[in-house]
Amino acid sequence: MTYTQRTHNCGQLRSEHIGQSITLNGWVDGRRDLGGMIFIDLRDRYGLTQVVFAPQHNEEIHQRAHELRSEYVLSVTGTVQSRPDGMTNDEMPTGAIEVIVDAFEILNASEITPFEIEDDVDANEDLRLRYRYLDLRRPVLQKNLLLRHKVYQTVHRYFDAEDFIEIETPVLMKSTPEGARDYLVPSRVHAGRFYALPQSPQTYKQLLMVAGFDRYVQIVKCFRDEDLRADRQPEFTQIDMEMSFVKSEDVYRLIEGLIQKLLKDALDVDLELPIPVMDYYEALERYGSDKPDLRFDMELVTLNDAVEGAEFKVFSSVLDGDGIISGINVKGQAEAFSRKKLDELTERAKTLGMGGLVWMKAAEGSLTSPIAKFLSEDMLSGIRNAMSAEDGDLILIVADTRRKPALEAIGTLRLELGRELDLVDKSAHKLLWVVDFPLFQWDDETQRFYAEHHPFTSPKASDIALLDSDPAAARADCYDLVWNGNEVGSGSIRIHDSDLQSKIFEVLGLSKEEIQEKFGFLIDAFRYGAPPHGGMALGLDRIITILMGIQSIREVIAFPKTNSALSLMDRSPSTVSEEQLKELHISLRK
Amino acid sequence: MTYTQRTHNCGQLRSEHIGQSITLNGWVDGRRDLGGMIFIDLRDRYGLTQVVFAPQHNEEIHQRAHELRSEYVLSVTGTVQSRPDGMTNDEMPTGAIEVIVDAFEILNASEITPFEIEDDVDANEDLRLRYRYLDLRRPVLQKNLLLRHKVYQTVHRYFDAEDFIEIETPVLMKSTPEGARDYLVPSRVHAGRFYALPQSPQTYKQLLMVAGFDRYVQIVKCFRDEDLRADRQPEFTQIDMEMSFVKSEDVYRLIEGLIQKLLKDALDVDLELPIPVMDYYEALERYGSDKPDLRFDMELVTLNDAVEGAEFKVFSSVLDGDGIISGINVKGQAEAFSRKKLDELTERAKTLGMGGLVWMKAAEGSLTSPIAKFLSEDMLSGIRNAMSAEDGDLILIVADTRRKPALEAIGTLRLELGRELDLVDKSAHKLLWVVDFPLFQWDDETQRFYAEHHPFTSPKASDIALLDSDPAAARADCYDLVWNGNEVGSGSIRIHDSDLQSKIFEVLGLSKEEIQEKFGFLIDAFRYGAPPHGGMALGLDRIITILMGIQSIREVIAFPKTNSALSLMDRSPSTVSEEQLKELHISLRK
Repeated sequence: MTYTQRTHNCGQLRSEHIGQSITLNGWVDGRRDLGGMIFIDLRDRYGLTQVVFAPQHNEEIHQRAHELRSEYVLSVTGTVQSRPDGMTNDEMPTGAIEVIVDAFEILNASEITPFEIEDDVDANEDLRLRYRYLDLRRPVLQKNLLLRHKVYQTVHRYFDAEDFIEIETPVLMKSTPEGARDYLVPSRVHAGRFYALPQSPQTYKQLLMVAGFDRYVQIVKCFRDEDLRADRQPEFTQIDMEMSFVKSEDVYRLIEGLIQKLLKDALDVDLELPIPVMDYYEALERYGSDKPDLRFDMELVTLNDAVEGAEFKVFSSVLDGDGIISGINVKGQAEAFSRKKLDELTERAKTLGMGGLVWMKAAEGSLTSPIAKFLSEDMLSGIRNAMSAEDGDLILIVADTRRKPALEAIGTLRLELGRELDLVDKSAHKLLWVVDFPLFQWDDETQRFYAEHHPFTSPKASDIALLDSDPAAARADCYDLVWNGNEVGSGSIRIHDSDLQSKIFEVLGLSKEEIQEKFGFLIDAFRYGAPPHGGMALGLDRIITILMGIQSIREVIAFPKTNSALSLMDRSPSTVSEEQLKELHISLRK
Repeated sequence: MTYTQRTHNCGQLRSEHIGQSITLNGWVDGRRDLGGMIFIDLRDRYGLTQVVFAPQHNEEIHQRAHELRSEYVLSVTGTVQSRPDGMTNDEMPTGAIEVIVDAFEILNASEITPFEIEDDVDANEDLRLRYRYLDLRRPVLQKNLLLRHKVYQTVHRYFDAEDFIEIETPVLMKSTPEGARDYLVPSRVHAGRFYALPQSPQTYKQLLMVAGFDRYVQIVKCFRDEDLRADRQPEFTQIDMEMSFVKSEDVYRLIEGLIQKLLKDALDVDLELPIPVMDYYEALERYGSDKPDLRFDMELVTLNDAVEGAEFKVFSSVLDGDGIISGINVKGQAEAFSRKKLDELTERAKTLGMGGLVWMKAAEGSLTSPIAKFLSEDMLSGIRNAMSAEDGDLILIVADTRRKPALEAIGTLRLELGRELDLVDKSAHKLLWVVDFPLFQWDDETQRFYAEHHPFTSPKASDIALLDSDPAAARADCYDLVWNGNEVGSGSIRIHDSDLQSKIFEVLGLSKEEIQEKFGFLIDAFRYGAPPHGGMALGLDRIITILMGIQSIREVIAFPKTNSALSLMDRSPSTVSEEQLKELHISLRK
């Protein structure tokens, strides 16, 4: 096909081009017939330019322009002219000019699109995903992917300047399921054998440290065959990095520099460094979460001391064990929360696994509450003091013998109330390192330990002895990066000693044979001079959503899948031929 | 683990640091016991530094140093001092200094490595791949991957500056096997259905053009489940790009700028632009190859005219049909090629599918040859002239009724002789665009056409009518980039018209239902204002090998697989549990 190619793009023309003959290629964004003339906004990625078909200028062209419809692709040649007085548009970069058309060609027609190409689209998401190539024409998605491009560039440049080497690790690797499920790829050449898609390049990046590359980075696709929660994707993108001869703090400094740059480049926001560090247990006690949202206060307060000796059964049973009584002060909301609303909150606490919720209202220097009669006046004033309550405040309290569930329940109430009462400063960027998670989690069902992060995480040097005596108490030398209440990255100092690595696998219940079969190559590698090393992986998709202030990661991925891992556009996954299956030595189960 | 972290790396210290107390972390590259002192070269990615354990400086440390072995990982603290007179090493960046050790720690020991960590390694490749993390310590592999890193950076920067947007396309996509086999991924959530890994992101990048992104680029992993030839990998990396509103020449200019930059950044070589363009048929006729190596001459000469009317049956049968008689002039080699060597060449021609090989030697102003008696003196002198032969030259001629096989056979002889006679200028970088390939290839076995490149390639505008009358004659608006005889990239102007695209699929023998089932989403997309567009994909792995002047792509990939698609290090592909298969709704065939 031959046609007149553009001399400029649709976002480029300014007053200085007036009088020039130019050619634009682009899409019809909208047509207006006004005063006998036809006006079209011609659109491309770079912007919009108004082009004018005027009968007094060229009758034949004006006639032909009547057939133009939205989303037609045109090549338009014309002369740049000033817009008439009063018709300029200061909000459009090209708003001072228009192009009077001397010739045009239709490069492609368009059927009527199944939804309007505009930000305020009323189509449901399934329809938009089916016609993703049209959805992606909407300005908001163009903007998201342009920002994503910018983020890639910042990441590339930052790590290059910091002497990191970008290295690609394999996509076809070995299946070693621990935790989430692997996606498998049957081998045609080796009957009955399978590759797995990486959940992360963890072992490879550690081997790159053993190989002496010192500093590795990669923007890399990872895969997890999970039952997808609301905002997960089967394939997702990580900024994956690893460094030799480092302590946690070295990783913090490096990543903080990156985040600072991302915020500056993307939003022109200055982030103050260093990012604060909080112990996992402190985060749980103060925010009821291992990824606290620090954009508002309403901290949790432990009330065990304040209610010591209470005869109220809910409290006393907690005080007898290792439980916790924890409250939040909902400032100034005593009046606003009717009995009905408080009942609703109590129901919510129950769905979060609590037996109930205690509420108190601060009034006349004391506290009123359905349970006030079970507590002494001293206790009530102790609670009031501990909660820094003033008249008009609402206090919510949960109590449970199991500390973590209780804290997480009230942490969830905190978050929900924060949103509901509009306490969250949406323009703020609050980051936090949450560190020293437990190394293991005990699973009652399977009666074994699982790695809280992954089995390559080093225990804290001081906790190595606990691996024998009390594995559940051992803490990991690990760190999560939390951004506005989202965990955006996770990392650790790794094990580099083959005996310690074997020991961890033993605690996880793997037999010597399983260890050798699954991870023998890594343990072998540690026998040939593995350096101390550590690193982390950041969730790129999530970071883009935070930078753009949006919720769904599907809005920052060009071709996302649905929550049931379907691509509605090309209808994958799809059936394949019997011949293909035969070549792969597999068959479908009946 | 706590230890003294480095203050400098092992490639950093110079005379200006003399007198400073510093700490290095690194590997023992070698130990020499000399004159009662112990010398160690401490190594990291950045270089080597000589460290000295001297008894007169610290007796205890000198004693402990006896246990140090190659590949131990150390933290060494000491004082930088000038090397003694005559002991400086100008070839080492740190050769002016050494570090006299005040304290050291062993961060990790090493067993004796299965092969020496040095460039001239005598271990076979399988052993090296099994211990890839040790293989990667060798300076040559470190250098390859460092160059690869540099290439990534050049690519990122170049396309960013050219207004391209980096966009990630899905790895889990739809299986539409055409040509090479897909790797499949069974879906757990959707029983009996499969994703495929992309052979290329072709359809997605075209949809990004439909979406209006205008200029797309991605460094992307692609997958092909082929019977691996000597130098292919099941997963490989492409620089994939696409542009809207372009002609072939626009793509040439863009890619040429990149290649020029790569050569400059990596090798400080200046590439003259533009890169010449050659028609596919001309490349075949002049070089017997669609990827000619222009680093030496020895061009093919078509002798059909020169031998017109010959009674020699081999020639006359060719002249009667559409065959070709083609020769090369092996300059000055008449003497060097004995009867025995010529017989070997003839055998080689036969294994290349030829009936035989005609040889002639230029001597005394004429040509001697076993077939001279069948040719007139005029014909012999005609051949001599056509071949620009001088006394002492050897002429080799093949003849076949099938043009392409004949040309490819003598093209192969040309390449082999070029190498054998050392005619190839190994320092040269000769690039070439080979363009206008046939659109289709007829396959006798399946009695159908296949797309020579892929089914999305546009026919040349002038050849569209041939789709009905003579598809085999239709040429594609496509282009290969050839670099020193390697095809390093392939691209085309694409079809953007839904009817034309359907037409191509029909020529390829797909039924209307198959077209809709496999590619309906793309054809639909073309109905909503698809812009004219084109692009290409460059083979990154191959480009690195050319820049490094090496043969095997396994030497430029961190963790490659063998020719039978095995990872010898982690032993993937591997068997998986029955439970995993059950979840994926598949079973192994008996």
